[in-house]
Amino acid sequence: MNRVEVGFEEVGDDLAIEGIVADLQALRAASQMRRYRGTPPNLPSRAETVAAVEGLVAALFPRHFGPSGLRAREVDSFVALKLSESLASLRRQIELELRLAAAREGASHALTRHATRIIHEFAENLPRVRQLLDADILAAYNGDPSAKSVDEVVFCFPGVAAVVRHRLAHELYRLGAPMLARIVAEKAHSETGIDIHPGAEIAEGFFIDHGTGVVIGETTIIGSNVRLYQAVTLGAKRFETGAEGQLLKNYPRHPILEDDVVIYAGATVLGRITLGKGASIGGNVWLTHSVPAGASVTQAKASEDLFLDGAGI
Amino acid sequence: MNRVEVGFEEVGDDLAIEGIVADLQALRAASQMRRYRGTPPNLPSRAETVAAVEGLVAALFPRHFGPSGLRAREVDSFVALKLSESLASLRRQIELELRLAAAREGASHALTRHATRIIHEFAENLPRVRQLLDADILAAYNGDPSAKSVDEVVFCFPGVAAVVRHRLAHELYRLGAPMLARIVAEKAHSETGIDIHPGAEIAEGFFIDHGTGVVIGETTIIGSNVRLYQAVTLGAKRFETGAEGQLLKNYPRHPILEDDVVIYAGATVLGRITLGKGASIGGNVWLTHSVPAGASVTQAKASEDLFLDGAGI
Amino acid sequence: MNRVEVGFEEVGDDLAIEGIVADLQALRAASQMRRYRGTPPNLPSRAETVAAVEGLVAALFPRHFGPSGLRAREVDSFVALKLSESLASLRRQIELELRLAAAREGASHALTRHATRIIHEFAENLPRVRQLLDADILAAYNGDPSAKSVDEVVFCFPGVAAVVRHRLAHELYRLGAPMLARIVAEKAHSETGIDIHPGAEIAEGFFIDHGTGVVIGETTIIGSNVRLYQAVTLGAKRFETGAEGQLLKNYPRHPILEDDVVIYAGATVLGRITLGKGASIGGNVWLTHSVPAGASVTQAKASEDLFLDGAGI
Amino acid sequence: MNRVEVGFEEVGDDLAIEGIVADLQALRAASQMRRYRGTPPNLPSRAETVAAVEGLVAALFPRHFGPSGLRAREVDSFVALKLSESLASLRRQIELELRLAAAREGASHALTRHATRIIHEFAENLPRVRQLLDADILAAYNGDPSAKSVDEVVFCFPGVAAVVRHRLAHELYRLGAPMLARIVAEKAHSETGIDIHPGAEIAEGFFIDHGTGVVIGETTIIGSNVRLYQAVTLGAKRFETGAEGQLLKNYPRHPILEDDVVIYAGATVLGRITLGKGASIGGNVWLTHSVPAGASVTQAKASEDLFLDGAGI
Amino acid sequence: MNRVEVGFEEVGDDLAIEGIVADLQALRAASQMRRYRGTPPNLPSRAETVAAVEGLVAALFPRHFGPSGLRAREVDSFVALKLSESLASLRRQIELELRLAAAREGASHALTRHATRIIHEFAENLPRVRQLLDADILAAYNGDPSAKSVDEVVFCFPGVAAVVRHRLAHELYRLGAPMLARIVAEKAHSETGIDIHPGAEIAEGFFIDHGTGVVIGETTIIGSNVRLYQAVTLGAKRFETGAEGQLLKNYPRHPILEDDVVIYAGATVLGRITLGKGASIGGNVWLTHSVPAGASVTQAKASEDLFLDGAGI
Amino acid sequence: MNRVEVGFEEVGDDLAIEGIVADLQALRAASQMRRYRGTPPNLPSRAETVAAVEGLVAALFPRHFGPSGLRAREVDSFVALKLSESLASLRRQIELELRLAAAREGASHALTRHATRIIHEFAENLPRVRQLLDADILAAYNGDPSAKSVDEVVFCFPGVAAVVRHRLAHELYRLGAPMLARIVAEKAHSETGIDIHPGAEIAEGFFIDHGTGVVIGETTIIGSNVRLYQAVTLGAKRFETGAEGQLLKNYPRHPILEDDVVIYAGATVLGRITLGKGASIGGNVWLTHSVPAGASVTQAKASEDLFLDGAGI
Repeated sequence: MNRVEVGFEEVGDDLAIEGIVADLQALRAASQMRRYRGTPPNLPSRAETVAAVEGLVAALFPRHFGPSGLRAREVDSFVALKLSESLASLRRQIELELRLAAAREGASHALTRHATRIIHEFAENLPRVRQLLDADILAAYNGDPSAKSVDEVVFCFPGVAAVVRHRLAHELYRLGAPMLARIVAEKAHSETGIDIHPGAEIAEGFFIDHGTGVVIGETTIIGSNVRLYQAVTLGAKRFETGAEGQLLKNYPRHPILEDDVVIYAGATVLGRITLGKGASIGGNVWLTHSVPAGASVTQAKASEDLFLDGAGI
Repeated sequence: MNRVEVGFEEVGDDLAIEGIVADLQALRAASQMRRYRGTPPNLPSRAETVAAVEGLVAALFPRHFGPSGLRAREVDSFVALKLSESLASLRRQIELELRLAAAREGASHALTRHATRIIHEFAENLPRVRQLLDADILAAYNGDPSAKSVDEVVFCFPGVAAVVRHRLAHELYRLGAPMLARIVAEKAHSETGIDIHPGAEIAEGFFIDHGTGVVIGETTIIGSNVRLYQAVTLGAKRFETGAEGQLLKNYPRHPILEDDVVIYAGATVLGRITLGKGASIGGNVWLTHSVPAGASVTQAKASEDLFLDGAGI
Repeated sequence: MNRVEVGFEEVGDDLAIEGIVADLQALRAASQMRRYRGTPPNLPSRAETVAAVEGLVAALFPRHFGPSGLRAREVDSFVALKLSESLASLRRQIELELRLAAAREGASHALTRHATRIIHEFAENLPRVRQLLDADILAAYNGDPSAKSVDEVVFCFPGVAAVVRHRLAHELYRLGAPMLARIVAEKAHSETGIDIHPGAEIAEGFFIDHGTGVVIGETTIIGSNVRLYQAVTLGAKRFETGAEGQLLKNYPRHPILEDDVVIYAGATVLGRITLGKGASIGGNVWLTHSVPAGASVTQAKASEDLFLDGAGI
Repeated sequence: MNRVEVGFEEVGDDLAIEGIVADLQALRAASQMRRYRGTPPNLPSRAETVAAVEGLVAALFPRHFGPSGLRAREVDSFVALKLSESLASLRRQIELELRLAAAREGASHALTRHATRIIHEFAENLPRVRQLLDADILAAYNGDPSAKSVDEVVFCFPGVAAVVRHRLAHELYRLGAPMLARIVAEKAHSETGIDIHPGAEIAEGFFIDHGTGVVIGETTIIGSNVRLYQAVTLGAKRFETGAEGQLLKNYPRHPILEDDVVIYAGATVLGRITLGKGASIGGNVWLTHSVPAGASVTQAKASEDLFLDGAGI
Repeated sequence: MNRVEVGFEEVGDDLAIEGIVADLQALRAASQMRRYRGTPPNLPSRAETVAAVEGLVAALFPRHFGPSGLRAREVDSFVALKLSESLASLRRQIELELRLAAAREGASHALTRHATRIIHEFAENLPRVRQLLDADILAAYNGDPSAKSVDEVVFCFPGVAAVVRHRLAHELYRLGAPMLARIVAEKAHSETGIDIHPGAEIAEGFFIDHGTGVVIGETTIIGSNVRLYQAVTLGAKRFETGAEGQLLKNYPRHPILEDDVVIYAGATVLGRITLGKGASIGGNVWLTHSVPAGASVTQAKASEDLFLDGAGI
Repeated sequence: MNRVEVGFEEVGDDLAIEGIVADLQALRAASQMRRYRGTPPNLPSRAETVAAVEGLVAALFPRHFGPSGLRAREVDSFVALKLSESLASLRRQIELELRLAAAREGASHALTRHATRIIHEFAENLPRVRQLLDADILAAYNGDPSAKSVDEVVFCFPGVAAVVRHRLAHELYRLGAPMLARIVAEKAHSETGIDIHPGAEIAEGFFIDHGTGVVIGETTIIGSNVRLYQAVTLGAKRFETGAEGQLLKNYPRHPILEDDVVIYAGATVLGRITLGKGASIGGNVWLTHSVPAGASVTQAKASEDLFLDGAGI
């Protein structure tokens, strides 16, 4: 269909937008004054950050997310080009985030060089990221009876999509770009319903099935070959507050899951507790204490609690 | 990559689409006959409605959602232009919705003037909306230990994104454009997993953390400084039916939350009940009765209900 | 705003992407060697598959999802053209999926003809699909007090959006294109938070309200006029494994819901059990046994389990 | 390549655009005051006009300019849809032009109905336009030894492209939308280098070869089967002025070419003169008098005028 | 600015497009019946052909026409990828042209293999094409006092742009895809005003200055280091006809220019004549006879022919 | 129509693009080595330059080239925003051109500050540019009997379009960005067929009618109220060469036209000659000597030179 520019005179000549603009201006000024001295610095671009990360995903999995029909002979060229382009774009966003942080903190020299150092380290870690993801994908294929092929797992599974973005976001978080990391994480959250804070440390072979409603907090630590189902929360139990009642930030407050833990749908695991190696947590369980290795936790007599009132019974 | 038009002859010359078209035509006719006399009127455009609201969001928060690199000197120009354009576009959609309603109800005069009146009132309320949102944003920053800065909160938090759209959708609902309001609400639901009916009345300082799975019903009333976590439901307990068994619509059937209420993840609060000022509802609680101010409700002995069967225990 | 190509030299001349490319190449080779002999075949295009299905949705509901302002006189032309185009595009993707499967299984002749046969049968079923959807839409309108009109239901309800895509995905699954089916299902999952495996068999008059967090497994069977609320899981209880410990795939492991069943928010129903005609399952119920027709299952004494600690009580 | 929004802060904070804006505002006001009382009305959209005409060209020649791969069975659907869409778009532009003219001339009632009348007559003439174009295309194929097929002529020849747009522009001119007509003509001029004023009356079988630099004035009249080569001018000899020295407009001032006239490259034919049936005008000829039927005009002894100064001669 | 779909109902419900569609259908049928037995085959895509050629231009001159900011380290990757993509796209168009020709001529086997053979030969000639172009560019730089740098010549000069496309179009013509060649040539003609038939054979070091209005016919042969100015025609003198009066096609009818010829603006050179090595043809000269090597041809006493009627003389 | 990515495997696996890439690489290296020491610097972006200039044109004429339907109240906001954005974009391109020149000339400090100085001066001259253009537009309206309104002149006339771009390009040329200036000029040349070198100095009230084929050289000087018709050349007579035979650049070699000169179609005026105030040069005249003020030059007895061979005469 043809597309045309919206005519925007239809709002009527008598609507005095000037006054609204002035009111909004005053509100903005009041809000910014609390946070910045002088003009606030520009923010990184969400769109460019997301596009750069999608470019990296295509470089990591060129057959699945690169251009369709790419010849095997040219895959490396595609990967090189996509990496170069995406890393350059990300580097610029990192510099914008560093400048923003510097404006809040009052320091600002050598940010360009710092951003370049970050992006170089980020780039060099990409093969290791892909290695971790290969293990994640295999875990998904092996762990889900509905998975028809590894290609389907890479191509379609929201749990895999979320973990791919998380591993990249975590690198950004770790290297000093937490806002970019959060942008990437929240984009994945929006697409998959899986909310993994980029601070979470997750070892290889990690699989989330279905995934909608999963929440994994900032200081969570997850061992190898862990499996989660939809609506699992790995959260904080309560928030600690400082002397003046304000929330403390950045202290360990989320669970530690050792290797081979499985947590079924809807379970809630709260606080800096440890689930021992191989522990299995049943659906809808509400857990706030550590459990030993090999433990199997289920809701006691869940079915017996049901009150069944059948017409014909 | 170059992009080309799909050749669509590949379906084969012998596929007789004519018959399918005729069948579909008959089904459409049958469906429309039940609802409209004569040709049904055109619907508003979802794409244009969503774009207009995103334009308003950019006008409300130009530094975060306006063009990157906008100079401080030109921000007001950007806001004026974006408002004018978005309001004009929205006005047209409002008129389309009014025409649609008129076609069902049989009245149809002066709709253009009515639409203009609505958009003017909507526009004049925008500064108040921004004021409410400033309080919401502050509540989010203060309420979440993972929030690194106010900018991150505005930029990345799905709970904030949903409330921003809700406050605009609620204005549309209140002023007589419930379908547009619903389009806006469902777009935010799709992006964030947070389902707030545009009818819900929500005071300032409202914060939803994580958010996926939150449902807030049409007649819910929420006081100041309320905080919700993921998967909280504020729903109806049962639906009332009329004399002929059909559902009654538009009567108060969802909870009232007074100021300072907190509801933790997964809690379900149903029916026109009242949670008193400062009440705190624990995770996974199922609540169908009112609770007094200051009450703290948790699932009794939740942990003791667990059945732990550890291999080595 | 003007838009320009990203300059991507900024990453610095000294970043040696060649080494990263080589590392990634080795990892890809290792991963593909396990799965394919020789060069792996190309994958279908997710973007084209999704676009084709959206084209079919527009052909099924031209007034809601076709171009705005389409004249009644030209609706059939639009439908014919959109069908022809979308079916041709889908046919090509089907052929790509057949080739991919053949590469894994070692057979590969007559795939073009096979793909054409599939698309023809798919096309001929479209009127029946629309008929089922008309009943679904009516069920949604009748079942939700917040639904203001049938148009709003078609236009805005995520439950309807998910079921529309499911019915098309299910046809693809049934006719032998399970990966395309999964692509369509996961796109709908991403948009609505509703995860329906394309294998699920669902009769007419099906309605999901709110929907975020709903999971419906591959071998689920659902009768007529069933209604689900948000966060309902219809899952497998446990996975069966073969002689060598690997997961068995493709055996019946999800529930059967007979006609007129209602399941409220957050309920979990697991295993190949049967919920008899008209059964009603309460919110948050955890159910792993069959229940007879007409049964009403709720969590026993849910409210009494609450521990209320009100300051003023 | 990724594409991002231009950051536009780079111009420096100290550039005071406000003053430039004010200067430009004053200049605009001065210019408009001479031409309009009050706020000048909006102009038609060049982009939409051009898009509508390209839509009509696709409807007239669907195999060449419609979507590639269109099945023969759906061609009529495509034509119907494209006509409906393009005519609606054009109708709106016609109304905008009528409003603009009314603002200059001070009359303004019933313009919507007038625009609809024009578009209906325009639409009904389209088959006749296609008939004329079929004759033009045949003339091009028969008249150019480099033409390999009729398809190549339709697809590639700039002379044909210009005449197709001219015949549509001429209809707009004739029916009272001269500015839209001029937009269409100038777009074709830009694409082909052939400048045909939309007022020119041209009978069937008209062919322009190569075309760059051809100019055909507003009151030119051209009979059947006329052929022109590049850089031919059919212009006015001098402009008549009124009592106050201002140019007179809209009087016959360009040539009349009877049937079967041929004019070779670079010839200039000026004034309201008549070239009789079958006349042939040689290259570079400068002609300001009528010539009889069958006449052959060439530059006398052109070659003899050359002065040849060969080194070795 | 937001952009929305055009509502196309505005044309009014009473415009009966069906009749126009039927008339156009009849005219199409009549036109096609003359040329094809049965359904006419699909045409190649102009858009895809042009995009493929622009891709090749970017691969030939990656610094000028590749993505801005491409790092030197990744240039080869870009070139490899762009070549692969553009050649594949072009191969498909070649096959479509071969099928079209076969439909007219009644032969049709092995066209896919034939197309592949053509594209391979085309690809292997690309380095030779670039070599020729390097000489052309140097000639332009050396021949124009306004050329500030070689980069400016490559980047901006229309004569260079036209010759780049010509050399690619000529390869297509020579290898058996004359319609694609013509598409490429006419696109360049539209952009530059320079009309070079793809059949023309042109040796290295060719430069056209300004260029608008230049026409070079199908059978022209041009030696090394030739220079043309704007509005030069190298055309046929007259067209030969066959026994039945129809035009003969494909016989030598345009000039031969030996090495080092220069032709100034507006000169017209017609017929299969030879301009000897180093000949110089003056502006506006009309030439239909061969001239020897080293000859200098000017319009005799051009200035004296002027009639000067100065008021003050 | 849906659009999809081109599959580019079709070129066949056996086409060894690597060799072609290597050949092209060697040719590039050879070509660059002649011009640059080390890696050649990046070029400015043609696309961004053109977009910035189109943005400025919209800011200069917001009613004609700004968004359709812009309200009078918001015009200044649009102008401010468009200026800010376009100037920032242009500033960056200017810096790229300065860097490119510095790489050739071996100096490179303070280029960012230099670019900013240029763009500030450029910006401050914009009102003067608009003033000149108002006079040009009036001259066009007054000088062409086919001009129906001033709006049509601004909107449609290629001569006006070319002069608008020239006046901006000339500023860039004058301030030290000749390559950007040339990009702008050649874009206008491509669109209009009018080739004005950005170096030409042109006073107010300048009008070119029809325009295709007009060439105006770099050192041309044109007074007030001059009028040209199509295919007029204001060129150099011959090029001067230095001691070693290379072309001299940047010396005065094109005509000077004093106020009120008129030159009719196809006339050629060569060399650094002067056409005195009010001189009139007839169509197709070839002129290489100065003429005094008020002179009227025509081709002597043009018509008498014709050889008329009419069948019936």
